[in-house]
Amino acid sequence: MLIALLTDFGLRDPFVGVMKAVIAGIAPEVTVVDLTHDIPPHDIQAGAWALATATPYLPPGSVAVGVVDPGVGTGRRPIAAHVGRGVFVGPDNGLLTWWLAREPATAVVTLDRPEFWRQGGPPLSATFHGRDLFAPVAAHLAHGTPLAAVGSPIDIATLARLTVPAPIVRGERVTAHIVSVDRFGNLITDLGPDLAARLFAATRITAHLGRRRIDARAATFGLGPPGAPFWYPDSSGHAAIAWRDDSAARRLRSGVGAIIDVWIKDATK
Amino acid sequence: MLIALLTDFGLRDPFVGVMKAVIAGIAPEVTVVDLTHDIPPHDIQAGAWALATATPYLPPGSVAVGVVDPGVGTGRRPIAAHVGRGVFVGPDNGLLTWWLAREPATAVVTLDRPEFWRQGGPPLSATFHGRDLFAPVAAHLAHGTPLAAVGSPIDIATLARLTVPAPIVRGERVTAHIVSVDRFGNLITDLGPDLAARLFAATRITAHLGRRRIDARAATFGLGPPGAPFWYPDSSGHAAIAWRDDSAARRLRSGVGAIIDVWIKDATK
Amino acid sequence: MLIALLTDFGLRDPFVGVMKAVIAGIAPEVTVVDLTHDIPPHDIQAGAWALATATPYLPPGSVAVGVVDPGVGTGRRPIAAHVGRGVFVGPDNGLLTWWLAREPATAVVTLDRPEFWRQGGPPLSATFHGRDLFAPVAAHLAHGTPLAAVGSPIDIATLARLTVPAPIVRGERVTAHIVSVDRFGNLITDLGPDLAARLFAATRITAHLGRRRIDARAATFGLGPPGAPFWYPDSSGHAAIAWRDDSAARRLRSGVGAIIDVWIKDATK
Repeated sequence: MLIALLTDFGLRDPFVGVMKAVIAGIAPEVTVVDLTHDIPPHDIQAGAWALATATPYLPPGSVAVGVVDPGVGTGRRPIAAHVGRGVFVGPDNGLLTWWLAREPATAVVTLDRPEFWRQGGPPLSATFHGRDLFAPVAAHLAHGTPLAAVGSPIDIATLARLTVPAPIVRGERVTAHIVSVDRFGNLITDLGPDLAARLFAATRITAHLGRRRIDARAATFGLGPPGAPFWYPDSSGHAAIAWRDDSAARRLRSGVGAIIDVWIKDATK
Repeated sequence: MLIALLTDFGLRDPFVGVMKAVIAGIAPEVTVVDLTHDIPPHDIQAGAWALATATPYLPPGSVAVGVVDPGVGTGRRPIAAHVGRGVFVGPDNGLLTWWLAREPATAVVTLDRPEFWRQGGPPLSATFHGRDLFAPVAAHLAHGTPLAAVGSPIDIATLARLTVPAPIVRGERVTAHIVSVDRFGNLITDLGPDLAARLFAATRITAHLGRRRIDARAATFGLGPPGAPFWYPDSSGHAAIAWRDDSAARRLRSGVGAIIDVWIKDATK
Repeated sequence: MLIALLTDFGLRDPFVGVMKAVIAGIAPEVTVVDLTHDIPPHDIQAGAWALATATPYLPPGSVAVGVVDPGVGTGRRPIAAHVGRGVFVGPDNGLLTWWLAREPATAVVTLDRPEFWRQGGPPLSATFHGRDLFAPVAAHLAHGTPLAAVGSPIDIATLARLTVPAPIVRGERVTAHIVSVDRFGNLITDLGPDLAARLFAATRITAHLGRRRIDARAATFGLGPPGAPFWYPDSSGHAAIAWRDDSAARRLRSGVGAIIDVWIKDATK
């Protein structure tokens, strides 16, 4: 069984290591992988995006622990949820937003059973639910405890969701948004599999990011035109913009939140 | 069995990965977790602090390898020690200071048995005991070799210790020190569980960090006042100072070594 | 069995975590270690160096996955190879250069058997062979699948190799090159075990890095002279230059590619 961790804790402090130690104390047989711990502090949107791009590749039944949690210890609910074929453990603060856009939650509980929280050692802390609630609950779930045991059911419709951009389609005109920038400076848009397929199958496209035109398309980085931005199908399934051997974000001075106007001349027209 | 690693090696070079490969060659069944590898180069004090905050959460019997070791290959002793319910492996240079402030060492050996060092492969190096001594010894210990087998006993009283700050208490007046700054910019003080409990139970407190007053207290980040610093009980068990949705270190231009004068009006008075 | 990962993916995005999740889905019993993911983007030379310094310490039979792959999805071949007692999986773009300088490849296949690529989940991507080809193939190999099964044999002589510096020896005069700078700012040269042994056994040496003379030698960092650069035998087996308690790279304003002229007065002369 696998537990995947995603936080904004960084790797400077031993926070993540301590979560893993707590997991190992409960479920030593479980494999733990890090998705990322470099979500910008308190950036729930970035965490939600990263979580949603990673979860399709986890083995079925994996437990994803997401902790980007500025409201730790306040009224926001600590939850565990069945989402698609996976399990989420973390705060109910919108971290599930993008994941839920792809797969439905089928059961959600609030973590109100202290017997599944950290036992022994120093007292529990109101400021580190990652260590004291989420890691131990995830360990129990990965170890075989059913979801219904670790908390009381709550209404799926009440799950917190962020307001996130979505592409606007008016025939041949599509308004897209940059929702993520990866380590290479590639600009990932909210044009998901269907719109991306349409964009790459089109006879011709014209896109504007600010005053910059981006009309070229390539199947992969090394096939893009030198010295100009181009569209490519990102590994997340989304249409994205790269700059060959450089950072598109830096060259285009763009980033999350930017708007791209795309005109798509469909192949079938 | 678990081995926890803490170093100042960073993650840019394959140093840490190589330590894990050496461990896997000796004790493939052992789980290895990273506490942190981002201790500032040669900052033994920072390493000692991080080690002490993490070890209470390791499963009993875990082996903590600490390598912040500017004196590698010189006269400083490579050691293994029983500390509390855990085991330490690393240089005898003060890395144990804060851990020993909480739990006693009960046995210490110096690593003078080359049969437990790295075997085979390229020659041993005088500049990488992490790979050639500490990782293999830790692997043997986690695999079941008793401490007494891996080295000759040394006098516990001779363990190196750093001079570290300690709070000064004169009745209602307490002088505290900032001993760590976490990734979120929270300022962790040396007011440990007892003094922290007193501070948070007090009727009223007045604290000065330089010319700045810090009188507010909150149970967790999201409950702090906006736009002002406040005290909160850090997950390490220490009293600490945060700034809501921002970095207290940056807002207060403060860091490790700073002094805070606190006046505590006890609740019982 | 062990899989070691080396990439230029960084840890900001979930790329590495997703590779591990794919491996865990195929070969959950395998231990995965990170060598480094902080190779500068697209810097094949740096990746090749790091790979070669780490592989001597992997248990025999380990699979090293190297992904620094600006040509992903283009004509460059995805390969798996027996090199020395280990296995390499990654692009055929020169990443093996330094490793092959030490150990021969004995068999190489190109990864043309899709049944060993990622199965199920979202479609394969032309821009993330790390996730879709290399991780699953490495998992199958570590799980016991023979190399010959995962691809068609190719001629070892056709493996891509980088043009890399090599020391030039003319009697007592040696021209060396800096090939790597580690996290501590130590300057690692291309003077490998034999030349390093000669340098440290010499009666006297005189070296020039630009206008700076570097004549001192020490067995380890703590034994070097204060306030001056000195040679030491790096843990990689190469002669290197350090500055006590500081970064030699910063103090000497030097880095990869710099040339060092060394005059070695051999002890036996």
